[in-house]
Parts: sequence; structure tokens; C-alpha cells
Amino acid sequence: MSKSPEEEHPQKAFGWAARDSSGVLSPFKFSRRHEIVGIVTQVGPEVSKFKVGDKAGVGCMVGSCKSCSSCEQGSENYCPNMILTYNSTYHDGTMTYGGYSDFLVVNQNFVIHFPESLPLDGAAPLLCAGITVYSPMRYYGLSEPGKHLGVVGLGGLGHVAVKFAKAFGLKVTVISTSPNKEKEAIERLGADSFLVSRDPAQMQAAMGTMDGIIDTVSAVHPILPLIGLLKTNGKLVMLGAPEKPLELPVFPLLFGRKTVAGSLIGGIKETQEMIDFAAKHNITADIEVIQMDYVNTAMERLAKADVQYRFVIDVGNTLESP
Amino acid sequence: MSKSPEEEHPQKAFGWAARDSSGVLSPFKFSRRHEIVGIVTQVGPEVSKFKVGDKAGVGCMVGSCKSCSSCEQGSENYCPNMILTYNSTYHDGTMTYGGYSDFLVVNQNFVIHFPESLPLDGAAPLLCAGITVYSPMRYYGLSEPGKHLGVVGLGGLGHVAVKFAKAFGLKVTVISTSPNKEKEAIERLGADSFLVSRDPAQMQAAMGTMDGIIDTVSAVHPILPLIGLLKTNGKLVMLGAPEKPLELPVFPLLFGRKTVAGSLIGGIKETQEMIDFAAKHNITADIEVIQMDYVNTAMERLAKADVQYRFVIDVGNTLESP
Repeated sequence: MSKSPEEEHPQKAFGWAARDSSGVLSPFKFSRRHEIVGIVTQVGPEVSKFKVGDKAGVGCMVGSCKSCSSCEQGSENYCPNMILTYNSTYHDGTMTYGGYSDFLVVNQNFVIHFPESLPLDGAAPLLCAGITVYSPMRYYGLSEPGKHLGVVGLGGLGHVAVKFAKAFGLKVTVISTSPNKEKEAIERLGADSFLVSRDPAQMQAAMGTMDGIIDTVSAVHPILPLIGLLKTNGKLVMLGAPEKPLELPVFPLLFGRKTVAGSLIGGIKETQEMIDFAAKHNITADIEVIQMDYVNTAMERLAKADVQYRFVIDVGNTLESP
Repeated sequence: MSKSPEEEHPQKAFGWAARDSSGVLSPFKFSRRHEIVGIVTQVGPEVSKFKVGDKAGVGCMVGSCKSCSSCEQGSENYCPNMILTYNSTYHDGTMTYGGYSDFLVVNQNFVIHFPESLPLDGAAPLLCAGITVYSPMRYYGLSEPGKHLGVVGLGGLGHVAVKFAKAFGLKVTVISTSPNKEKEAIERLGADSFLVSRDPAQMQAAMGTMDGIIDTVSAVHPILPLIGLLKTNGKLVMLGAPEKPLELPVFPLLFGRKTVAGSLIGGIKETQEMIDFAAKHNITADIEVIQMDYVNTAMERLAKADVQYRFVIDVGNTLESP
């Protein structure tokens, strides 16, 4: 552990990183094992899943214990020893450094095949936003054609949720605090209807109509009105993690046998299934491609929610080697 | 609606009822259609399910719309127009008067057959407490042998939950604020283990061990420690309805894909299934049989939780006709 980041591994890498609590990113030399979408440039002797030249992606995880019940069921994302792609400690005790760099090294079991037809830039965010909305729709039985799904929040997760839900054949209602997102939701993303969550009359009229709701909001917000939108046996799935506890009224859960549940990204097998589904249905995230040295400005804009809907950094073409 | 309770129906009945907000019960003459366990004394010309002399029971419901999707699926308990056995308005606009009386009249579709072997007094509370715990164990997949179930609160619902869970072949842990209930839970009711919810060390040691938890507590209480007891994909099922909202921490739901859900009694078909299961496994509630004129004292004792575990009123033998 006393080695510098540059000497930990044989592969010398270069990228951008934040190295103090200011969060400002700057050029950074290190050695690496790891992250995000790109072309395979080298394979180890025991690699069978990939060959040089393949399109490939790495999501939020690069490792797990491989022996717990979650790992055995292909839900590495719920492994208590899951290793994140960035800011985690790998099996060998070294840091994982994320994907803002010229290359990464990763175990083939945590790499996703990208079908040729899928554009790397638009599909990259699917490895996080895509699987985060796809997994709960499948797990909680909300992907059967004809079901009615509510999507709360029309941001990075929400806009992708609408696209997957429509591809599954669902009726989709976007629920948002911003009335001015209605046109975008319906005309461009294909949602069937739109509810302004602050309009009690609209919410009242939609009571008891939804089989499930995907709630992407990370801020503290009332969930009683959302529970009210659910049919009997309906499920409210939380994907955002508000800092403080939410208020949970229990009575409405009893009358209607309703569920409030959580979900966190997805397993590797499921992520591959999601990418294949996305390729088949031409689903990509709506993105703004930026250069590496724009990253700190992008961070400032993210804090102001000033992006539609995801930034993708073109690291390969814009990272200037030292 | 202008008729007196005595004149609404052809059958003149007599019982005990509370007629003002004091809650004190006193003898009451009325006419009736309805409630709880007993022997069939009369059947209408179109009744095919029952004959005179049969043991029969009526639970919390005596009617529903019969046309909504809940009714069509046999979940009359979630019908928005479900009619409770007491203090509800029946299809014909008259009141339902409960079961503290010499007889009741009820639609055969809401009557449960009682197998001969099942004692009427001990089995009567199963029509409420029994189905209330049985239904969520079945619906939420918590009845498979070998699963580990937590039962929060060892009262009327909780003690019956332990009995059903053991009959299903589950491992059962009772979770209670009262350390002095341990002996009762393990030695008499057959639970496998016992956790004092106020003991952080005990709770910590049991983290991540349970497939599901049946929470019978109606008072406001913290659910974060209970969510912590669940394995990945675990389900916390609320059966009590605290007056105020509970605090719901969302983060622990995401990490572990956990669920907080509700459940309310059960459907008629499921109630019959539960009674047949109870008869097969000799499950009854632990009761204290009282006389009709003891009911107000019993109410006072209930308010102090001074009953182990359910009062059953022997209406048939102790109701003195006017």
C-alpha cells in the first residue's frame, strides 16, 4: 500500500481525477486495472468472452465476492462485498479509479458486450441509468405489456425509464413538479400522459390507476400522493436515495396491499440483457458529448440540473497525454 | 332509513352494543342480517353451501361489489366497496351490527365452513387474526419451509403468526420490546429464537438474517432496525396501522432491494383455505372465554393489553334474552 498510484500496477495510465475535497478534477497519472465504454485493445491469456476490437462497456461494478447468495443468483449488485468502479478498494487492496482515462483493465466477468449497432456515446449511460430502471421493471413485474407505469422525475434516469417502458409496451405517465416538461415527455419521449405532482386535482383524478411507479427523485418528497396513484397490489419503487427518511403513511399500504421498495443498478447478466434489449429497440440515452477539459464546468452545470439528460465525456479523442 | 333498528329486517334480534361515543356496551334490540362463529340454524331457499347444523364462521366482511378486479380475483378484502361486519352500511342501506347477538343473517358467499374438529371458541379469532397473518405469508412468498420469518409483537396477531409460521415449516424469531416474553415465545409457542428490539447488540447480531418480517405493532415505532434484519430481497410486512406516518429510510431499501408492504385481512377463498390449514395443523388462538355481561370489563382490560391473547365472548350461552 505504500506504492504511489503510478506504481501499483504494470499498466501506466493517465486521466483526470479529483484529489481533494474541492471536487475539482485535473490531469492525473496513475497505474490501473479499470472503466466505461470503448474498444478492447488487449486481452489476457485467459480471456474468452472478448477479442481485440470488440465494443465493450463497464458499468458501476468491477468486482464482487462471487460466493454469496446474491452473486450465485447473478445479483452481484447486492453482494455485500461488491466493488464499485471508482473510489473502491479492489481485491488486491488497490484503489479503483473510474473511467476518466485513456484505458482501463477489468475482469471479463464485469464487461458487457456492445452490439455493433449501438452507438458507444448514447449507450454508455445505459450502463448506469439504463440498468437502474430496467432491473426494477423486470424484478417487480412491471414490464408486462399493457401495464400502467408512473415515472417520477424526468432526468437522467427518468427519461430512460420512459424509453424502456414504452419499448416494453407499457402505458406511461410522467409525474413531475415542472409543468413545462409535459411537451418533452409526451411529444419527444413518447409518454402517454403527464401529471403535475403539485396539482391536487390532476393527482386526485389519477388515483388508483397505476400498476407501478418508478421514483427517480433523490430529494426528500412526499410519497403519500404517489401511493395513492397505485392500484391494489401496486408497487412504488424508489431509485433515488434522499438524505433524510421519508414519511411513510402505513394505512394506505394496508388498504390496497401496496408496496414501497428499493432497487440498485442490476447484475451483470441482467445488464447484458438490458443492452441487447436496448440495441433491439434502438434505445439510447439523450446526451451532451463533452471534452475532457470541460468536466469541471459540466460538474457545475450538473449541480444546477443544467443538462439534458446526461453528459458523456469523449475521453478517447480529447484526453491530451502529458 | 327512517325505520328503527328493530324494524329494518324481518328477523328480530337481541344483543349488546355501544350506542354512543362512551363505548360502553349494553343490551340492544334490533333486527338483523348479520356475524361470528356458530351453528347454522336456518338457510334460505337458494343457499347451497350450508345446511342446518353446520359449523360456520363469518369474518370481518359480509359483502363486496363482486365486480371489481379485486373481487374477481377473490380478494374481496381489497374491494373499494367491501362491507365490514360491523358499523358498515349494507347493500340495502341498513347498518351491519356485528356479532354480539343471538343470531345473524349473512350471504353464504361470506360464510366459512368450520371443519368438525376445530373448536368454535379457539378458532373464532382466526377469522380475523388468523387470516390477517396467513394471507401476507402466502402472498409475499414467506410460507416456504426453511425460510426465516421475524414476528414483531407477541399479541393477538403475533402469537397466531408464530403458530402458522411453525406449521409452514419456517424458522421463527419473535421480536419484542419485552424481554419477559421470551419464555412464552420459545417454550410455549415454539418460536426458534427471540430478539429484544431495544437491545442493539442482539439486533446487530441478527442483521441480514431474515427473509421476511410480519410486523403486528400498531404504535408508531422505528422500522430501520427491522429493515436491517432482512436479507437481500427481504420483505417487511406491516399489519398494524400507526396513527402517524413512520420514518422510512430509503437507502437501506436500495442496498438489498428490500420491500416495505402492507396487508389487510384476506379474501373469502383464502380464509377458507386458512381455516382448513388450521384444522389440519391443530392451530387455534389462545383465548379467554368470557360472558356477554363481562364485555365492558374486557374492553378496559384490552386497553391495558391485559389479555392472553384474545377474548372470545360466549354469546350463545350467556346472552340473557329480554
